[in-house]
Amino acid sequence: MGPKAALVPFQGDEVQRGAAGRDVGQAAAELEARRGALEAKELALQPRDDVVDRPKMEDTLKRRFFYDQAFATYGGVSGLHDFGPVGGALKNNTLQTWRQHFIQEEQILEIDCTMLTPEPVLKTSGHVDKFADYMVKDAKTGECFRADHLLKAHLKKMTSDEKCSAEKADEMEDVITQMDNYAQQELADLFVKYNVKSPSTGNDLTPPTSFNLMFQTSIGPGGNMAGYLRPETAQGMFLNFKRLLEFNQGKLPFGAAQIGNSFRNEISPRSGLIRVREFTMAEIEHFIDPAEKVHPKFPSVADLEITLYSSKAQTSGQSAQLVRLGDAVAQGVINNSVLGYFIGRIYLYLTKVGLSKDKVRFRQHMDNEMAHYACDCWDAETKTSYGWIEIVGCADRSCYDLSCHSRATKVPLVAEKPLKEPKLFNVTQFEPNKGAVGMAYKKDAKLIRDYLAICDECFITNQEKLLNETGEFTIETEGKFFKLTKVMVGVKRFQKTLHVEEIIPNVIEPSFGIGRIMYGIFEHSFRVRDGDKQRTYFSFPATASPYKCSVLPLSQNQEFAPFVRELSEALTKRGVSHKVDDSSGSIGRRYARTDEIGVAFGVTVDFDTVNKTPHTATLRERDSMTQIRAEVAELPGIVRDLANGTLTWAEVESKYPIFGGQVTGKKE
Amino acid sequence: MGPKAALVPFQGDEVQRGAAGRDVGQAAAELEARRGALEAKELALQPRDDVVDRPKMEDTLKRRFFYDQAFATYGGVSGLHDFGPVGGALKNNTLQTWRQHFIQEEQILEIDCTMLTPEPVLKTSGHVDKFADYMVKDAKTGECFRADHLLKAHLKKMTSDEKCSAEKADEMEDVITQMDNYAQQELADLFVKYNVKSPSTGNDLTPPTSFNLMFQTSIGPGGNMAGYLRPETAQGMFLNFKRLLEFNQGKLPFGAAQIGNSFRNEISPRSGLIRVREFTMAEIEHFIDPAEKVHPKFPSVADLEITLYSSKAQTSGQSAQLVRLGDAVAQGVINNSVLGYFIGRIYLYLTKVGLSKDKVRFRQHMDNEMAHYACDCWDAETKTSYGWIEIVGCADRSCYDLSCHSRATKVPLVAEKPLKEPKLFNVTQFEPNKGAVGMAYKKDAKLIRDYLAICDECFITNQEKLLNETGEFTIETEGKFFKLTKVMVGVKRFQKTLHVEEIIPNVIEPSFGIGRIMYGIFEHSFRVRDGDKQRTYFSFPATASPYKCSVLPLSQNQEFAPFVRELSEALTKRGVSHKVDDSSGSIGRRYARTDEIGVAFGVTVDFDTVNKTPHTATLRERDSMTQIRAEVAELPGIVRDLANGTLTWAEVESKYPIFGGQVTGKKE
Repeated sequence: MGPKAALVPFQGDEVQRGAAGRDVGQAAAELEARRGALEAKELALQPRDDVVDRPKMEDTLKRRFFYDQAFATYGGVSGLHDFGPVGGALKNNTLQTWRQHFIQEEQILEIDCTMLTPEPVLKTSGHVDKFADYMVKDAKTGECFRADHLLKAHLKKMTSDEKCSAEKADEMEDVITQMDNYAQQELADLFVKYNVKSPSTGNDLTPPTSFNLMFQTSIGPGGNMAGYLRPETAQGMFLNFKRLLEFNQGKLPFGAAQIGNSFRNEISPRSGLIRVREFTMAEIEHFIDPAEKVHPKFPSVADLEITLYSSKAQTSGQSAQLVRLGDAVAQGVINNSVLGYFIGRIYLYLTKVGLSKDKVRFRQHMDNEMAHYACDCWDAETKTSYGWIEIVGCADRSCYDLSCHSRATKVPLVAEKPLKEPKLFNVTQFEPNKGAVGMAYKKDAKLIRDYLAICDECFITNQEKLLNETGEFTIETEGKFFKLTKVMVGVKRFQKTLHVEEIIPNVIEPSFGIGRIMYGIFEHSFRVRDGDKQRTYFSFPATASPYKCSVLPLSQNQEFAPFVRELSEALTKRGVSHKVDDSSGSIGRRYARTDEIGVAFGVTVDFDTVNKTPHTATLRERDSMTQIRAEVAELPGIVRDLANGTLTWAEVESKYPIFGGQVTGKKE
Repeated sequence: MGPKAALVPFQGDEVQRGAAGRDVGQAAAELEARRGALEAKELALQPRDDVVDRPKMEDTLKRRFFYDQAFATYGGVSGLHDFGPVGGALKNNTLQTWRQHFIQEEQILEIDCTMLTPEPVLKTSGHVDKFADYMVKDAKTGECFRADHLLKAHLKKMTSDEKCSAEKADEMEDVITQMDNYAQQELADLFVKYNVKSPSTGNDLTPPTSFNLMFQTSIGPGGNMAGYLRPETAQGMFLNFKRLLEFNQGKLPFGAAQIGNSFRNEISPRSGLIRVREFTMAEIEHFIDPAEKVHPKFPSVADLEITLYSSKAQTSGQSAQLVRLGDAVAQGVINNSVLGYFIGRIYLYLTKVGLSKDKVRFRQHMDNEMAHYACDCWDAETKTSYGWIEIVGCADRSCYDLSCHSRATKVPLVAEKPLKEPKLFNVTQFEPNKGAVGMAYKKDAKLIRDYLAICDECFITNQEKLLNETGEFTIETEGKFFKLTKVMVGVKRFQKTLHVEEIIPNVIEPSFGIGRIMYGIFEHSFRVRDGDKQRTYFSFPATASPYKCSVLPLSQNQEFAPFVRELSEALTKRGVSHKVDDSSGSIGRRYARTDEIGVAFGVTVDFDTVNKTPHTATLRERDSMTQIRAEVAELPGIVRDLANGTLTWAEVESKYPIFGGQVTGKKE
């Protein structure tokens, strides 16, 4: 097994924080190849007008400063982007909607933890040892490449060569599908076998080495406290579990959430916002009693029809299917209704912020793709010109994370459930042989006994299996490893009457990649006006639009200014973000400029505004370009309600006169 | 001069990003000592009941998880804190109010840049060379101390010794007041002279060394791109200046802003949220034409009466004074009305989020405290139990930052101002002697000429002075230093007729330390109920309150549940954050628990709610504890308006019946 890490979701790799790694054999690789072929076919069959003009879109994103490469005047740094006013506002709205949709709706406990993280925490979580990719270097220039990407590109190029025999091509296809499964030496052998050279210079490459993807630093002046920038926000919720449980008055279930930046030192960042080195995540850890994996609010989403790509469909070569969520849970396709509830809520969120319904699906992890401790895991994926990309992970991680941190810190991370009457429980405990452990490990014996005392049943059972099969198992505590044999430790099972039940909560983890979601919104919203290829716009939903409204005086005449000021002040008072454009361009050009950045509505002050009472102005909707006319005093309230989503454009059209043209003109 | 850095405001040191350092002599030190004495006297005279019970307050902050030390179960890391649900919500509200108050009001361009920053950027800004403190280490244990803090504590202890002579005490007081001015060797001599040892162990100390306060890391897999975590957000705005100017259609003035985390590897973090290693800032860079330093909206704040502690008052030993802002600008106490406008807006913001009016003042930097390029600089300070602490810096930084980055990148960061008719301008340029430069620097000659070509008048004049005084000056470009002599370069001044004026914008920089502002809010809001020392509460303004409302059923009876659910759903729908407490505690205890975390209002469902129609419930205001009664259907709207600040409690009291007691009771 490689150091295949991918502990952070939605950077394109599988989520396996702290997992022992995938145990995917030849069969699984074939399944994956079959799935790949199916998807390639689907993409090829896609209607042409459904494919975004990516260069045109990217030109707009750059030119109007939605986002752009950071430090460009200093030569730029790959994988780092700055969001400009438009992209930043869209990001804020996406996050604000997230807060309303999840945190307020579920009364989730939002916390805000530091990004700097000391090493022991990430040692426990598995990131220090396993959050890595293989890398090769140009032997002369030192240029670095991600080994799997480079080998894949090399083999693809070779198979497409006319001279390549069918047999040879099959062999190489086989290597490509198994790429994730190679260990370091196997990968090294493949580089030699296929004679891979640096694509930039043709120079020899160094053998693959494991490269940890975390940014390391040193905390404090002593230089002896190693730290990292967090690769995910989740650890903050696990470490604060006890405080949060207490805040919730000791009761389960409750959700904790965090929005913030995470960091990943990609070997070769690419695809714009999709594979980057610094990115914003929004994560929920929903802690529940494993005996009560039922969500009371599931009926509110049960009737949603969602495209599910189940593990079974993938293994049997079928396509994804539109399924009623209630049926998927009832039939056991989705493990439990808590997971089902979050899948439904995630779907509603994604479509609310602007992803197309028909370009969102949930793909289940296949058995051998999933971490061994996870019960079930579904990725929300969205279809882009890069193919289907993972944007949200939603996993039932059982009690894995809490029990790891418990063992590492010797602090029990459990909830107590008072029982109405005493109850008989099965208890599983390690039973150390004090003498044998003491003899073997002397002054470390207490450390070992403390560690064994805090282990949970699931962990004990796994170690017991090892003990029975191999006669020993190894534990790691406070940076030291101890081998324990059958003589030193046994497992005791007994029944005990308890008045309070101790529970290690299970956790359901929806984890959102905000940059990737935004990228999906950009692709799904980008439009070209019929009949004018130069006029493009983003059809963002009003609630997500970076700016809700523009205010445009038809003329630079001084008489227009007071109306512009009045509208702008009234919009500000109502918290409606807007942009005044009183430049000299034609009104059509100014509309085009605001459409280009997805401003949802436009108010135009024209000659009728100035000349007639009551003073009225026009209000234009971006997508349809239809306009109505209403009183200046009324417009800011209308725009606020449209922007909040409490009023629809259809309602506005039915209530106010459609605008055809001005009655008056420039005064003589 | 020491490496006196303090390039980041509100961490207690002076703001001197990229400055050559303070040139404070004995006289200035005396003035500072005088100011210190005056403030100590003021603090001593403060009425006792105005001083917060800090241990009691800190106990609440910790116990109710407003914030707490990060990674506590792993032993904790000094200077790193996690915000819990209450502190996090207060922080979100503080930032949301900031967005409304500044960004929406002024249509500022908010951007969102990466925290990872490559070294060359911070080399230009001065942080790589100057953002440092002196440190000494315990020679045996390696424990680190900030040299100035340790020396000061040592001397204070010595002076307070009975055996210390008056003469000796004066000498040591003198050292304390001059602390910031010592160079490395002087500091080393003082440590020897006063025989300072490690306070933990009594061991010898190593001589002071300079310690850079930035967290360093390496970007990318090659290991050859040094990077840092940004120590401030400001650089992002300077580096994106061109894109932002273009976004603003080439026009000045405009503001750019950023909210985000910055990092500072403090040698010895302390005082809770006040001196930390990771903190959230909100910064504005307002770019203006230096010829038009007048703010059109200044009249809207001119009548504010604000406590100003002018440089003159400080040097003449006077107290701070309450001054009308308009007068302060008219009399030239504040340099210009743009700076004056921001001072007024900052004051309004700080009091809006919950700081006491009488505990906010603006202190002007003294001439020799200010960076040489700054026109004027005022710190907003707030009075806490730690004394006056800096919470916002507001500086007129002239064109310093843009011109530094221009010279470093050879990209002119200028705005163009079209002129109605051609105008004669004075032009100042370096005039390199091509032959002499070429002879001296061979292939680097072009590099030097490119650098000289982009320098602005201010920089040229400064170098010219050096050239005349010493016969040479040195420039640094692309990491190399070049000494230039009178033979190699001269200065040419001439007049030129231009149709477009090129302007290097000046920048006014209000820079907010969010954690410090929050700490001030905590101290100013913490209250103890009359007659019950155990009952404490935070009197946060409703708009800032972490939770706006609690919903409390008087009984756990099932009949109450539908009303609780109805209220909770209606509050969620209106975006009002709230907390349901249906635990079994008495209503008084539950009120106390919500008061303790500053929940602004409480709705109680009682027997009258259940038994009588129309169904009504009580609404309680936290500070006065008065209650009114209103219909259940109406209450969510009332709470929303109270929380928005569009309705006052006095208005509610006058409109609805004051609640005395229930009419009905538990059904038989």
